[in-house]
This record gives sequence, C-alpha cells and structure tokens, in this order.
Amino acid sequence: EIQFDPTTHPHRRVNPLTGEHVLVSPHRTKRPWLGQTEPPQQANLPEYDPKCYLCPGNTRAGGQQNEKYEHTTVFENDYAAVLPPPGPSAPPAPHPLLTTEPVQGGCDVICFHPRHDLTLARLPVPDIERIIEEWSSIYRKRGGQDGIKYVQIFENKGAMMGCSNPHPHGQVWSLSAVPSLPATELANLQKYSLSTPPSAAPRGPLGRSCLLCDYVTFEVSVAQAEGRVVLKNEHWVALVPWWAVWPFEIMLLPYKRHIPSIVHLTPEEKTAFAQILSQITIRYDNLFSCSFAYSMGIHQRPVPPTTDVVADDQDEENVAHLHLHFAPPLLRSASVRKFLVGFELMAEPQRDLTPEQAATRLRDLPDVHYLNAPE
Amino acid sequence: EIQFDPTTHPHRRVNPLTGEHVLVSPHRTKRPWLGQTEPPQQANLPEYDPKCYLCPGNTRAGGQQNEKYEHTTVFENDYAAVLPPPGPSAPPAPHPLLTTEPVQGGCDVICFHPRHDLTLARLPVPDIERIIEEWSSIYRKRGGQDGIKYVQIFENKGAMMGCSNPHPHGQVWSLSAVPSLPATELANLQKYSLSTPPSAAPRGPLGRSCLLCDYVTFEVSVAQAEGRVVLKNEHWVALVPWWAVWPFEIMLLPYKRHIPSIVHLTPEEKTAFAQILSQITIRYDNLFSCSFAYSMGIHQRPVPPTTDVVADDQDEENVAHLHLHFAPPLLRSASVRKFLVGFELMAEPQRDLTPEQAATRLRDLPDVHYLNAPE
Ligand SMILES: O=P(O)(O)O[C@H]1O[C@H](CO)[C@@H](O)[C@H](O)[C@H]1O
Ligand SMILES: O=P(O)(O)O[C@H]1O[C@H](CO)[C@@H](O)[C@H](O)[C@H]1O
Repeated sequence: EIQFDPTTHPHRRVNPLTGEHVLVSPHRTKRPWLGQTEPPQQANLPEYDPKCYLCPGNTRAGGQQNEKYEHTTVFENDYAAVLPPPGPSAPPAPHPLLTTEPVQGGCDVICFHPRHDLTLARLPVPDIERIIEEWSSIYRKRGGQDGIKYVQIFENKGAMMGCSNPHPHGQVWSLSAVPSLPATELANLQKYSLSTPPSAAPRGPLGRSCLLCDYVTFEVSVAQAEGRVVLKNEHWVALVPWWAVWPFEIMLLPYKRHIPSIVHLTPEEKTAFAQILSQITIRYDNLFSCSFAYSMGIHQRPVPPTTDVVADDQDEENVAHLHLHFAPPLLRSASVRKFLVGFELMAEPQRDLTPEQAATRLRDLPDVHYLNAPE
Repeated sequence: EIQFDPTTHPHRRVNPLTGEHVLVSPHRTKRPWLGQTEPPQQANLPEYDPKCYLCPGNTRAGGQQNEKYEHTTVFENDYAAVLPPPGPSAPPAPHPLLTTEPVQGGCDVICFHPRHDLTLARLPVPDIERIIEEWSSIYRKRGGQDGIKYVQIFENKGAMMGCSNPHPHGQVWSLSAVPSLPATELANLQKYSLSTPPSAAPRGPLGRSCLLCDYVTFEVSVAQAEGRVVLKNEHWVALVPWWAVWPFEIMLLPYKRHIPSIVHLTPEEKTAFAQILSQITIRYDNLFSCSFAYSMGIHQRPVPPTTDVVADDQDEENVAHLHLHFAPPLLRSASVRKFLVGFELMAEPQRDLTPEQAATRLRDLPDVHYLNAPE
C-alpha cells in the first residue's frame, strides 16, 4: 500500500469555519509560468503627497478637508457601499426566488498614519497600538448604532488587491445584516460549541467548547513541530491554517483564553496584538522583498456587548472567538501571484504548496524588515 | 415611507444555488478609479506561434509533440492538479478538525482550434459545435472511469484570469470527489425539488420541481421586461442572474425542458448551444472592444449516466439542470476591473451596478464582432 505523503499526494482538507474544502496539489508550483506578472510597485513614495486624498490637510473627492492628524484619523467613505438609515422597506418579491433585502449602514475609512510612505510593516509598535485603539472605538461606535448588526474591519493592501491608494489605511463597513461568511463562521462556531464535549482548551460562554480555542490549542501544543505556527508571543499566535486557501494565508488569534472581540482585550493583550501584527507584516514584506499585498479582515462578535448585557459568560453572542484572516495573493515572487479562477470559481479552491511548506518559509524569514536590515 | 428603488438603495439578494448573499451597491461605479489598471492585451497575435505549446505540431513542456490537429485536440495536463489512481488511503487525523482526504483523478487540456489568434468569439459556429462534441466525449470518458465522481469543464480566458496562453483552450478536471461549490448547488437543487410543489415550468426526475427550470421560466416569461435576459434562442437563454456577483456575470442554460447534462442534448439543442455561445462571447468582446477575459464553467450531473441505469425520469442524479457560469472581471473599461477583495473575501461579495443594468448594457450591444464589423 502507498504511504500518504502530504507533499506528494493531492488531497482535500476541510475548513471547519466554513465547511468548505480546499484541494491541495503540492506539485503544481513546478510548472513554468508564462502568464501575467504584476507590475513592480512604485518605490520611493514621498512622506507626503500633495495629490493623495488621505494625507493630512489634503482635500478629498467629496470636497472635505482631512484633519492635520498626527496618528490616525477616521472619516466616512465618500463612495459608501451602504447608506445610513432610514431606508426603504423590502419591496414585494416578484417570485419566491427573487427576494430583496434592503441594507443600511455606514462605511468608514481609517488612515493608519500621516506618513504616506509607511505601512504596518514599517510602523513602530506604539503606532500600531493606536490603530488597534481606533479599530476598537469604531467597532464600539458603529456596533452601538441603532439597527447595526455587524461591523467588518478590513484592510486591502497593494494595487493587486484592488487598493487604489498606497497611503496606509483600512476600512470598516457596518451593516444592518450579518454578511454570508461571518454568518457561516458564527453558525459553525455555535454548532461546534453545542456538539463537542469541552477539552482542556480555553472555553467559550456557558463553559462550552470553542472550535477555535480547541484548534489553536492543538496547533501551539501538540502540533507545533508539524509546523503551521509562524509566530507566537505571550498571547497571540500566527499560523497558516490547516485549511489555508491563499499560498501564504495566515490566521492570527489569541490562544490563552477565549476572547470574543477586540473590546475584550486587556492592555497587555493589545500590546502583544500590535507586536505580532508588526512581526507578521515584516515577514510578509521579507518573503519576496517587496511591500506584500493582502486583504486582511477581523472576525469577532458581530457587534460589541452593551454595558447592560448579562455577564460575559452567560452571553451566547460570545461564542465568537476573535481572529484575523490575511489573504495574500503572491505565490512565487514579487510579481507572480496565485489566480483563484476557473476551477476555483467553478468548483473549489486549489493550492499549489502545502500549508506546512508555506509556514516553514514564513517562519524561517528574518524578523527585521529588509529595508531596515544592516548591510 | 421611502419607495424602494434597486438602482438607488443598497440591498442584498440571495443566490438560491449556494445560499449566499450578494450586496448590491448601485452607486459605487461613480467613484473615481486611481487603482490598478490592466495592461493592454497583445494585439495581432500570429495565426501560428512556433513558441506556443498548444499550437499544432509544437512540443510541450513535458517533451510530447502536439498532433497536427485540424479542429480540436485533447491531452493530459503536464502539470496536473490531481494524479491518476491508485492513490494512498487517508492518513489518520492528528485531531478531529484536521482530516485529510486523498483525491485522485485527471486533468485534461482541450485546444479549441488550431488557430493561435482566435477565440470562441471569433470562431464559426460549426467549430464551436466541435468543441461541444469534445466536451461531451471527455465528460463521457472521464466520468465513466473507475472512482471518478465529478467532471469539471472550464475555461480561463485572458491573462487577468490567470490564463497563461492566449491560444484558445479550456480544461477539464476530473476528481474522485464532488468539489464544494457543485456539491452545494446539487444539495440545493435536491432540497428545492423535494420541498417545492411543481409549477407550470419543466420538471426534473420523478415529476419533481426544478429550481433552475422554475427560475428560468420566470425570467423568460414573466420577467423578461424587467430585463435580466441578454439573449435567447429556440432552446437556450443567457441572462445576468438575479444574484450575479461579477459585474457582467452570465448564466447560460436551456429553458424548454429539464436537461441534466450535455450528453442529454439533442442535435438541435447542441447547435443552438453553439450559436448562443458564439453570441455571448461576441457581445462580451464588444462591451469594451477587447478580447474579454472570463472564467467559464459547466455545471451539470456530476458524471454522465451509464447505459445500464434506470430510466432517466427515475434517476435522482438527474436533479442537476445543465448550466454554464461566466465570471468576467471587467467593470468599467478594457483596463478597469472589479476586485473581489477585502469586504468580499472577509464578509460577502459586493457589486457596483445592478444585474438589470448589466443585462441592459449587454443586450444593447451589436451582435457582430467589433473586429468584423463593416467600417
Ligand atoms: O492550469 P493553468 O491554466 O496553468 O492555471 C490556471 O488555472 C488553474 C485552474 O483554474 C488555477 O488553479 C491557476 O491558478 C491558474 O493560473
Ligand atoms: O473601497 P475601495 O478601496 O475603493 O475599493 C476596494 O475595496 C472594496 C471593498 O473590499 C471592493 O469592493 C473594491 O472592489 C476594491 O477596489
């Protein structure tokens, strides 16, 4: 009988957060690449760009002027994907398969720093702590607004990820509905908590088991040698999940206790969060010596608890366990990406190296940014 | 009370094939685009390229020589994502969340035509009929092999869709497992057929209702004025589905009777299929006067019936209704695409114009290819 070898034999893995599979085809990176290459990024950005609509003091498309901000700043997107309430009520469906659900909410832009030329990878840790504070305060503010059911914090970084401005910034879309993917993740976390007997890992509300606590406990204790863990500190671990789709996908999450959202973090956990965010983004830039493109998103409790809720441990909404997904497209070099097209769009995601191989590559990189490295 | 207007008010629609939502934000195309633009495509391709590994008579990466084919040709991908059986059996899972499912199968490449410089949009209809015959025969051959549970026929067209060679070609990946997306679609078709009382539309096996027959019957009869239908002939309709994600997404399907797969097509239905494929791809090219990039996939019965199965009408596998998805990324012009990133990857797909607006644009285009149009 043939012995299974994950680096030789194509196989599928399941993402328990979504129920979806990924097809792992470890030999595909050997094929020659004659396809599209990404244009080199603009090097030597200025510290301030008079034409940038995110730089301090500049005027935006809508005519408003940015604050002369010194750390972070937040404003409403001039081209928001959702609009504030009140909205219309649902129109009658012309057929049961054709229903319409009106959505309200708001879209915020958050500038991470006044400097036009820096990214998370090049910001000092205290500046990243300020970004985390800003995320917490938008999450509290938007999540506390009437009718808002979900707050999605994310960052698109790099032109190949649809980002139209290199000035370091992220977005926050707050909606009157829970979007498909987090709704699926929450349903699977809920299902797991009700069906799986608690292990020695940290636990969710009502003493029930937590899928992500169980998973991450396994990864940091038992499986660390197998090597999906990239980085770890006192409170957080960054790993290439067993079910990763993107070549160098990372999941970042706290592993010492069950934490439903960023407003549940202690000051020490926040500092450790800023530190590991800095370390992840530095390694990403070091992988191909470029400003590494990705989409990043924070998954957590749909909205923060209000002060008058029942005790944390009784609150079923706390079934969420805070985690971040990084989805970076580059595969082979600064200019050759993975395309999730054809088979991936029509059948299921397919990856060309194993998550363990990706984690090893990331783990072995220096932790000093290549632009700051001594000659 | 505010009256709901789909071209003004952000809203969500559900895809009944997947259960997923799309967020429709009709005002977003107004925002200025300063982001990545796609490089212009190579114009004036030669009819034969001595360096192309798909042109007749040339040598491929693996050293094999292509036939001097005159219509279509098929060969196994030199860098297949899955390998033929026998494969290893599943290894023990180190944790219940970390299971591995070995997958076997085969990956075929199908060259659509000897001419290096043509695409579906520029091929005569009889040549497209030959491609349909080739799809049918691969589907029969691969789908009849031991252990094959699913055959996915698809085409990646254009560099921005990860296609590495402009020579007109598609792929067929055959697997020992049903991939996530078709599995979900089949489950939803099955669920609908068991739970929805039959309407006047064509019906699936056992006289049960068919989700796609019901949907398409509504679109071609009742709702045609609302305008999601792009093109229609005696047997087929091409429409921008109610739940479209990609800006100019199209679903192509037969609407006169329930048809589980391409091997169930009559000769007339095949000719009509070739005709409408030609017309769709011509309109796509005409939209922005360029060779329009897309991923296309055929969804149907996972594998064809064997001759010794029960009567068609008794076969539950025939719950599938043949349909094709076209996922094209361009949004505003030949060089500005939609990026499904950030919010889309972390929360749910979002689109910038309504499906009805997209269908109107496509419907209003000339049906003669812009390169063949009289001056
Ligand atoms: O097999 P190809 O054409 O080289 O590769 C292309 O299609 C595959 C199947 O959709 C994708 O996995 C690849 O990312 C893409 O570049
Ligand atoms: O809002 P932006 O940065 O202009 O736009 C970018 O992010 C959005 C949210 O992920 C996407 O919908 C857009 O396709 C992308 O270009």
